Amino acid sequence: MTLIVQKYGGTSVGTIDKIKNVAKKILAAQAAGQQVIAVVSAMGQSTDALIAKIKKLSPVCDPREYDALLSVGENESAALLAQAIIAQGGRAVSLTGWQAGIRTEDNHNKCKIIDVDAQRIKRELRAGKIVIVTGFQGLNSRGDVTTIGRGGSDTSAVVIAAALQAEVCEIYTDVDGVYTTDPRLLPEARLLSAISHEEMLELASLGAGVMHPRAVECAKVNNMTIAVKHSHKAGKGTLITMAGEKLNTVSGVAADDDVAKIGLLHVPDVPGMAAELFGALAGAKINVDVIVQSIHEEARKNDISFTVSNDDYARALELTEAKARGWDGCRVAGDTDVAKVSVVGIGMASAPGVAARMFAALGREKINIQMISTSEIKISCIIEKKELKRAVKSIHGEFGLDKC
Amino acid sequence: MTLIVQKYGGTSVGTIDKIKNVAKKILAAQAAGQQVIAVVSAMGQSTDALIAKIKKLSPVCDPREYDALLSVGENESAALLAQAIIAQGGRAVSLTGWQAGIRTEDNHNKCKIIDVDAQRIKRELRAGKIVIVTGFQGLNSRGDVTTIGRGGSDTSAVVIAAALQAEVCEIYTDVDGVYTTDPRLLPEARLLSAISHEEMLELASLGAGVMHPRAVECAKVNNMTIAVKHSHKAGKGTLITMAGEKLNTVSGVAADDDVAKIGLLHVPDVPGMAAELFGALAGAKINVDVIVQSIHEEARKNDISFTVSNDDYARALELTEAKARGWDGCRVAGDTDVAKVSVVGIGMASAPGVAARMFAALGREKINIQMISTSEIKISCIIEKKELKRAVKSIHGEFGLDKC
Repeated sequence: MTLIVQKYGGTSVGTIDKIKNVAKKILAAQAAGQQVIAVVSAMGQSTDALIAKIKKLSPVCDPREYDALLSVGENESAALLAQAIIAQGGRAVSLTGWQAGIRTEDNHNKCKIIDVDAQRIKRELRAGKIVIVTGFQGLNSRGDVTTIGRGGSDTSAVVIAAALQAEVCEIYTDVDGVYTTDPRLLPEARLLSAISHEEMLELASLGAGVMHPRAVECAKVNNMTIAVKHSHKAGKGTLITMAGEKLNTVSGVAADDDVAKIGLLHVPDVPGMAAELFGALAGAKINVDVIVQSIHEEARKNDISFTVSNDDYARALELTEAKARGWDGCRVAGDTDVAKVSVVGIGMASAPGVAARMFAALGREKINIQMISTSEIKISCIIEKKELKRAVKSIHGEFGLDKC
Repeated sequence: MTLIVQKYGGTSVGTIDKIKNVAKKILAAQAAGQQVIAVVSAMGQSTDALIAKIKKLSPVCDPREYDALLSVGENESAALLAQAIIAQGGRAVSLTGWQAGIRTEDNHNKCKIIDVDAQRIKRELRAGKIVIVTGFQGLNSRGDVTTIGRGGSDTSAVVIAAALQAEVCEIYTDVDGVYTTDPRLLPEARLLSAISHEEMLELASLGAGVMHPRAVECAKVNNMTIAVKHSHKAGKGTLITMAGEKLNTVSGVAADDDVAKIGLLHVPDVPGMAAELFGALAGAKINVDVIVQSIHEEARKNDISFTVSNDDYARALELTEAKARGWDGCRVAGDTDVAKVSVVGIGMASAPGVAARMFAALGREKINIQMISTSEIKISCIIEKKELKRAVKSIHGEFGLDKC
């Protein structure tokens, strides 16, 4: 008998009828000879409803009480899913994070899982039960309930799968799997049958939105194969797995329009300037994405450009302007009218010319490239926001991603 | 510094604004030099909403999952109340049943609290925090969350107060305290300043509805004084305390219209008949209240009458009829058109004539008494339902309960 972990997100358990469907799916997996652990998120918008309530009490919440409150959402869905399985004739037990032995760091709200004491889960599996575990939550060394940040249920599922050496971790979601690009942007987007953890990591952090990056990273570290599937449709989905013999040169094109650009012009070329600026941004917990520095035509002056998410833009601009006032002759320019398009592929490192083909594809469409950033398996370009859709189409076609 | 336990019911924490008010009340008690533990119920109708969800999955629920689900309601209100106190500048921590060390029997749904391991509560109090504890729930020896039945938060509060040797257990509710009778039935009903546990026990089980009988019993066993007060109005409320020097002959008149009567006529007068009938009812978990047996005019035949709640009536009638078919000449008659009126008073035992005065008060109003049942501190009469209000008024006046 093989052990699998299945994860069902908030939309998959959003209504009582959907919970019944999920129960049926789990029982089918058991009937096919598998031991099943199911990790669940809170029903639909229930976490948002809880946040709305506590925010009415205070805009800034006590981190411990915030976690104590939010954990309620998964407790509810887990108990209901266990009941649904029992109502369909199965045997099931719901376990909260603390009951399932999910141990986290002591801090709150976005803490990391340290380990899983899987004794209780194993005992319930041995008793022939389907084990439902609440995602997103755990217990710290003080005996307090913690949560591990938005999208954390993916991570819970992978961590549990790794701890119990499951065969596979199936992530059920509201899409069919991982596509070569966002199908809402480009109808010819094609479902990928397999992709490496590294590529998925780039796609996840580039806004493909299918899986939480931390979960993919955790799966990579643990050699855990993930299967991304649709919760209420049949289909093979996409396997996220160790890179096999068949390397895709380019696996996908990621589009991200949650991007704002800030440029600092005429920065004095003195050591420590960049450290000072980005240190201030990091201190304000602003995530900086692409950073490009270039030498200005004027001697001993640099231009620095970087991107942040739209949420962080106003605060980042303010901090940058404050710094710039101390640097003689320095000028700041912000632009929220930008987007990021990226190609991702694990075979890219050994296939020269990918960057050139990407730039050519943009050039053919007369799309101006404002910033470029590259890594081993990814090339990103910052372009004008309104060009994003055309850019994706052109690059997707260039690499033949619409063909099998 | 004295330690007090306060309990806030579902209506007291039914909205975010009410939670803010409760937080203010708790902080005022702390400012007055008291250490405070607050036990909370789930917000307003949220427990009913959870039950409605799980009942959609199955009319008969898995007891363990039912408890896992229902505990969510108190977890929510406790975290919100702690946050409300923190937002008002106080220090607070919310503890679930398992965090607060509330240990229960292993069974589910209506289990009893065995003991309280108060280490965590004490540690938080020592740290200067207001401790919010979820009512209604605990943990069994298997590590599963349990609930202790409807109205169980009262019991949680009393048990915690007893375990921590609190000065008093204050029960905040949506009435001003305990009245001589239901003020909705009789405007001249008067608020009692004090009442004994025994009397309250009779009033509670007779439908006065202010407090859960099990909580009163637990307070009696532990010599714990309870103060019943209105959650959002000032006022001294009612003290439920050990019987002091001043014994009320009659403390109050209780009215209960959730009563149905079943009569068995011409029961053969053979030993074991009553045991057989009431054994069958007990087996079906039907609570029988008043039982009266009288000798029939016919020799060797008895009449047996008893009352049950309206919910149990149909099933009780069915079972009684099934038994009666086996007893030659026996006839069954049911009547849902009845009510129970009772006088309760701890001084009654030493004051003869209370029964006679009660019957006289009913007689003056030409109210026919169908059944009578008496105990040390209580006399109950079953009468026609439509006479209930007039009966209460007449008896209330007879014993001068409208005067201080």
